[in-house]
Amino acid sequence: MISLDMTLHKNDANFQPLTPLQFLERAASIYPDRTAIVHGTERVSYRDFYRRSRQLASALTKRGLGAGDIVSFLAPNGPPMLEAHYGVPMSGAILNTINTRLDAETIAYIIEHGSSRVLVADRELSPTVKDALGMLRDKPLVIDIDDPLGSGGEFLGECSYEALRSEGDDDFEWLKPADEWDPISVNYTSGTTGRPKGVVFNHRGATLLSMGNVLSWNMPAHPVYLWTLPMFHANGWAFPWSISIQAGTHVCLRKVEPKAIHDAIRAHGVSHMCGAPIVMRMIVDACTSFGPVSEERIEIATAAAPPPAATIGAMEEAGFRVTHLYGLTETYGPAVVNAWHEEWDALTLDERASQKARQGVRYPVLEQLMVADPESLTPVPPDGETMGEVMFRGNVVMMGYLNDPDATARAFSGGWFHSGDLAVTHPDGYIELRDRSKDIIISGGENISSIEIEGVLYQHPDVSEASVVARPDEKWGESPCAFVTLRPDASGVGSAEIIEFCRERMAHFKAPRTVVFGELPKTSTGKVQKFLLRDRAREL
Amino acid sequence: MISLDMTLHKNDANFQPLTPLQFLERAASIYPDRTAIVHGTERVSYRDFYRRSRQLASALTKRGLGAGDIVSFLAPNGPPMLEAHYGVPMSGAILNTINTRLDAETIAYIIEHGSSRVLVADRELSPTVKDALGMLRDKPLVIDIDDPLGSGGEFLGECSYEALRSEGDDDFEWLKPADEWDPISVNYTSGTTGRPKGVVFNHRGATLLSMGNVLSWNMPAHPVYLWTLPMFHANGWAFPWSISIQAGTHVCLRKVEPKAIHDAIRAHGVSHMCGAPIVMRMIVDACTSFGPVSEERIEIATAAAPPPAATIGAMEEAGFRVTHLYGLTETYGPAVVNAWHEEWDALTLDERASQKARQGVRYPVLEQLMVADPESLTPVPPDGETMGEVMFRGNVVMMGYLNDPDATARAFSGGWFHSGDLAVTHPDGYIELRDRSKDIIISGGENISSIEIEGVLYQHPDVSEASVVARPDEKWGESPCAFVTLRPDASGVGSAEIIEFCRERMAHFKAPRTVVFGELPKTSTGKVQKFLLRDRAREL
Repeated sequence: MISLDMTLHKNDANFQPLTPLQFLERAASIYPDRTAIVHGTERVSYRDFYRRSRQLASALTKRGLGAGDIVSFLAPNGPPMLEAHYGVPMSGAILNTINTRLDAETIAYIIEHGSSRVLVADRELSPTVKDALGMLRDKPLVIDIDDPLGSGGEFLGECSYEALRSEGDDDFEWLKPADEWDPISVNYTSGTTGRPKGVVFNHRGATLLSMGNVLSWNMPAHPVYLWTLPMFHANGWAFPWSISIQAGTHVCLRKVEPKAIHDAIRAHGVSHMCGAPIVMRMIVDACTSFGPVSEERIEIATAAAPPPAATIGAMEEAGFRVTHLYGLTETYGPAVVNAWHEEWDALTLDERASQKARQGVRYPVLEQLMVADPESLTPVPPDGETMGEVMFRGNVVMMGYLNDPDATARAFSGGWFHSGDLAVTHPDGYIELRDRSKDIIISGGENISSIEIEGVLYQHPDVSEASVVARPDEKWGESPCAFVTLRPDASGVGSAEIIEFCRERMAHFKAPRTVVFGELPKTSTGKVQKFLLRDRAREL
Repeated sequence: MISLDMTLHKNDANFQPLTPLQFLERAASIYPDRTAIVHGTERVSYRDFYRRSRQLASALTKRGLGAGDIVSFLAPNGPPMLEAHYGVPMSGAILNTINTRLDAETIAYIIEHGSSRVLVADRELSPTVKDALGMLRDKPLVIDIDDPLGSGGEFLGECSYEALRSEGDDDFEWLKPADEWDPISVNYTSGTTGRPKGVVFNHRGATLLSMGNVLSWNMPAHPVYLWTLPMFHANGWAFPWSISIQAGTHVCLRKVEPKAIHDAIRAHGVSHMCGAPIVMRMIVDACTSFGPVSEERIEIATAAAPPPAATIGAMEEAGFRVTHLYGLTETYGPAVVNAWHEEWDALTLDERASQKARQGVRYPVLEQLMVADPESLTPVPPDGETMGEVMFRGNVVMMGYLNDPDATARAFSGGWFHSGDLAVTHPDGYIELRDRSKDIIISGGENISSIEIEGVLYQHPDVSEASVVARPDEKWGESPCAFVTLRPDASGVGSAEIIEFCRERMAHFKAPRTVVFGELPKTSTGKVQKFLLRDRAREL
């Protein structure tokens, strides 16, 4: 036996706290002249990206901000948001990016809950910001982002973002975290019900997920990354940090629209992007209207909902390769990837789509993933049928919910993060989501996945959107009730035909018993508000 | 100010010790049928690689081994060496791979110094092993690797490696490290003088360097990696673990010879390999004799000496891209990379070679790298001329030297790892080695880099090998003395012509004043033994 304790201790030479901030320092030292950011006609080199971030950190420090302070940003994607991902934590403070689509009351709640000391907000959002500020007793320091690409708005703050930044020294020696367990950011989840919860990330997890993105996506040197994903979503899935590892270029879009996406891809040689299925639909539409976007293959990662076969097919034809990711804000964004098998290339489009619809396997930086009984923590059998809750364990799981020990304890019950998502494990170990716990329909003692029914509904050529919830049923307890939006060009399809369509494609007990046509209620981030649909179903 | 301490603590859900062992578990769960190892006609799937590693871990556990115990392997590259990189630490024990070219006395010293409990050795090395065992009072458990591709040898052990492994359970629940700071391996450096020192790696550093290799080299999914680098060198630069991240294939070679390399590349579609310049020369020779190896570009990473222009040119013509890495056993292998700039592609071969000869910049997983005065720790100016010592700081720096607190303290003086390598920093921040501290020549108060002179000597068409040391000089203190091996087909070139050749290409005071022709003395790993040349130079 050897005794290691005496001589092999940690010291500055062999132990440094992990932090994604050093990726920018490194990129700027190796590739100072490379373009880090494209925003309209503006080009920011890595030298300047790093300089500006240090300036911001210095300015915040001079204003008295530091460890434990929260700095909120409320802005569309653009250089200030990217600088915030480095500059705020470089001052020791914690970054809080707020969803720009939220209402004033929720924004005020978030600022109050986290005791934000600073709110940096885009002028364009001034009407909402003004209302939010009106609701606050303790007002933060307000700073205006005055983006020339914006459409104006009131100046509400003490000064502009550029003026704040220029208070700082551009050779500021930025603060490394004292401990890699120190928080780097707090992201409020936009739950479909209840108050948002503040999900806290730390430097360790952010570093590992940043590397995990590059590793899982096989991202080569110098990617050109188009920002169709909002950075206020789980810190843009850590991509503000990932891109620095490979010294890539961030192409910003203030507004995510088909023409703008199309133009950006063509103008800047975009190689990578992320987006929900809605973004893919925009791309396909743009290709129809404006022609093909690129001769090189473009990688697109999607999450939030499995990409439908038709979209995958159209995307492939347009020169994209679709990678399906899965995660939650609580897992720093994506922590699960539909790792592709070469032999699946030979499958038909429908078969490929059904392989790709599965959420998949853990990132190399996620230590454990399982679908299990939430009480006993026993994994479900890998039969592709038995449902359980998706559970995560590892370094890319949040620290917890800010100032909410009860919710934190519940989320981490039994030493696993309980996602609230229901899934099955397939025989090959890939997991596939079936539902949110609260969205499952229990009919005659059988669990019915609303997602499964929605998947069938989406196969119907006249269906544009679909959402299924439980409707109280005297005989069965609950029965599936489908809310459906038809395509504008749909021929007059009726409930009976939709139900029949489903019965032909799935077990009869799973098919909807009720179909309601109309628009679906949604949150500011575009999530369907199932709790409102459940209310409606109850009243039918 | 928020108080995070009460609720946001570490728990099993959000904090797990980093370990590269989980990469194999993950690869086996996602790609169980993919070929992990090719060895002669043997093919090992990821399922079996993982199973065998757990079996080995279980067998060691049953034999009473665990935390703090050292298990030594003395074998050429092959499945047992790969399994050892997982199976030994999966039992909680520490892996010690020993250089197969060492003499019996040094092997005995290493086993004794680390108190190895087990020695797993290839039959082919039995003559040396027998001698080594004869020198030991406390003998370890000896196990024979009986590789059908080997050339026989005595059985010295209690049983064969396969028999040992089969004592274990193949569904053994392997032990995760209690702490990521726990040691995973100890690698004895083969210094050119003195006793070897045991460099201790831990799970944290091994995990990060494994990811760093993939990130720095932009290694895509499923690389086919040819083992021309011995795994006993700093755990094969962490590639036994890196390859699992991307679920690649290890192609093993017992003997590194031109024909074997050529055949392996052609037969298995090799995409990546590492090797010293000598390996590149073998490849170039093999292409001359046996034709081109591949139509796809092959990535080769090289270290130990800057690749000469002629070799880079020949390699490029043969379809290889050469990446220059730098590191020491103390930095887990490579921690510095000559990160390429696209604009350098347009340079002439000589210009490209001189860019590529520079060691470069830090890996994304190395926190800090500098060339500095070893006393004051002041970085040298980035002028490409002022020499200083290369210093490392970060998580891929060793824990220290096993049971050698004085050497550890010296190596970490001032909170930086002192490499003993002398270098300059270029204006673009890239570092370039000039010499080992002890190899520098001080002539008339000027520092002369022996590497710089060697670089010029290698440009001479008749020079096959060159090594320059200091010769005592009454007037100048020291003067450069060159030891040169001429090519077999060299025309009778003499000292005066060699000196003149150098004077035409460098400052006159740097040119060698003495040239001695003949073979160069080398260590078992092929390093030139400059201390012997210095003795000879003193006696001239």
